[in-house]
Amino acid sequence: MPSLLHDLRVPVVQAPMGGGPGTPALAAAVANAGGLGFLAAGYRSADEVAAEMAAARGLTDRFGVNLFVPGPRAEPQRFGTYMEGLTEVASEGEVGEPRWTDDDWEAKLELLRREPIAVASFTFGCPQAEVVAALKATGAEVWLTVTTPEEARQAAAVGADALIVQGHEAGAHQGTFDDAGAGEAFGLLALLQLVRAETDLPLVASGGIATGAGLAAVLVAGASAAQIGTAFLLCPEAGTSEPYRRAIREGGATEITRAFTGRRARGIVNRFLREHRDAPSAYPEIHYATAPIRAAARERGDSEDLNLWAGQAHALAREEPAADIVARLNADARQALEAARRADS
Amino acid sequence: MPSLLHDLRVPVVQAPMGGGPGTPALAAAVANAGGLGFLAAGYRSADEVAAEMAAARGLTDRFGVNLFVPGPRAEPQRFGTYMEGLTEVASEGEVGEPRWTDDDWEAKLELLRREPIAVASFTFGCPQAEVVAALKATGAEVWLTVTTPEEARQAAAVGADALIVQGHEAGAHQGTFDDAGAGEAFGLLALLQLVRAETDLPLVASGGIATGAGLAAVLVAGASAAQIGTAFLLCPEAGTSEPYRRAIREGGATEITRAFTGRRARGIVNRFLREHRDAPSAYPEIHYATAPIRAAARERGDSEDLNLWAGQAHALAREEPAADIVARLNADARQALEAARRADS
Repeated sequence: MPSLLHDLRVPVVQAPMGGGPGTPALAAAVANAGGLGFLAAGYRSADEVAAEMAAARGLTDRFGVNLFVPGPRAEPQRFGTYMEGLTEVASEGEVGEPRWTDDDWEAKLELLRREPIAVASFTFGCPQAEVVAALKATGAEVWLTVTTPEEARQAAAVGADALIVQGHEAGAHQGTFDDAGAGEAFGLLALLQLVRAETDLPLVASGGIATGAGLAAVLVAGASAAQIGTAFLLCPEAGTSEPYRRAIREGGATEITRAFTGRRARGIVNRFLREHRDAPSAYPEIHYATAPIRAAARERGDSEDLNLWAGQAHALAREEPAADIVARLNADARQALEAARRADS
Repeated sequence: MPSLLHDLRVPVVQAPMGGGPGTPALAAAVANAGGLGFLAAGYRSADEVAAEMAAARGLTDRFGVNLFVPGPRAEPQRFGTYMEGLTEVASEGEVGEPRWTDDDWEAKLELLRREPIAVASFTFGCPQAEVVAALKATGAEVWLTVTTPEEARQAAAVGADALIVQGHEAGAHQGTFDDAGAGEAFGLLALLQLVRAETDLPLVASGGIATGAGLAAVLVAGASAAQIGTAFLLCPEAGTSEPYRRAIREGGATEITRAFTGRRARGIVNRFLREHRDAPSAYPEIHYATAPIRAAARERGDSEDLNLWAGQAHALAREEPAADIVARLNADARQALEAARRADS
């Protein structure tokens, strides 16, 4: 099946990074260097997304938009104890209301139908076949994020054009369809082999890819491109906050946690994560509850109460313009392929 | 640095598999097909290992032996509660004594000095530099298993000839130096990139590699070979028990657990694993405590009380002779490299 994945000059997709790091400037820089950039529609109103799309259109002729598939409302008793704990430790007025929203789902879909884009990608669930079909009718490709072979089967069944295969190495949220019932935490390479056995759809590999050798490896494993986020966090084009940049530069172990948002996500271990390993599965309720705590921490430059999303290879992130990173990954990937070919012959 | 890794006709190392699956016949079949086979010295006396080595020598001219580096004795209070729970659920007489041993360490080292082999590999710790040097003086290569960049640094510092880089996808025990303080569970591909940034030593990639595409991917990522275990479990040459074979054929999710041995190891989720997620870090004490329970389960063909070690890609294991698996992996890896090269040009 032809996909724009096969037209990319460089097989690098910039991961949508909500909450700040992703910007139209970053998406455009990656696209103009031969890859594909993404805007993160999550946590924003449809109007805000429309404004970002307009900004991106001024900078590049092709980009994607990532949407969160809304999940079920959590029963309040599931997060009551956690909320009490948050209220005790947070300064007065800092804890937000644990509300549920559908993240402006219908309005965002309507926006993407009205103003077609190159690719609509989805995380946190499997959209209905009609949603997928309506977007495909605009000329967009629809890519669905999967973390298990079973999710890959479901995504193929609703008509996905491509699958973003996300390993547990990935920074930020796992795209798992059902966070509460999250199953096995597959490593990327095992998952690529298992998903390839399920479907012939084009695959985009995601999770801990930070070097040209890593990029070349997923291409050889059967992916058509790599989706890369953490390696772009230190770019001048990224909207990464100062305390977050400092944490990436300083480094440290990462862990998958529900502490910040009520959904499993990988970040660098800091005080807030350590003290909230008991966080329940309740997204977006916990996201909204902790948002003011995190905003205040960002404001005062404190990286200990912030979500420091980072993939397992974050130590390899460099402070370079995005175009230089794309060019380096591409050149190093070619070299890695060539070296393996020589060793093989 | 020249290593026998660079002489292998096929870049496949058969993972040492203690407790039954690994046999001299399996090691020889892999070696005679162009790869390298390993005997598992763990859980055996030095005399038993000597007998296996003699058997292997009759079948092939080259193989490796894997040793467990002895760890500290656990304080009895660490596993007291767990032992009480085991005693309550097990039938009379089924729980073993939670004893500590050094796994006949000195005698096994003496054996390998007296009867040199091609490769001595180590897991569960970093042997002292003198141990490494003494084995290298026999002409053997010394390969050390690492699961983090920090362990890679330590292994390089004691003079390892190569590093076995083990991702969290791997079946059976994680080779982590300090189980109790086990840090981040790195996925294989992220770990390969991070370790390559630390050292120029030859690397052997381990964890969830079950196809030629997976093999080619780790070669491109910088490994000189893949260490593969689970994919050989259903071979006629493997000593895999019948209930264990049945569980692999039936499939299911895997999880990392300390339930069976007191050390983190990946296996298919069964009743015993589910009911003992609270198992402490106490190896080999818990191994000896549960050994009679597991032996009895094996005897009666019950896969619910057995350790069903398996990597995350176990669904791709096939019932084939080991030589056919090695040949298939090699052919498919060449094809994957060639396809990526064509897509790149």
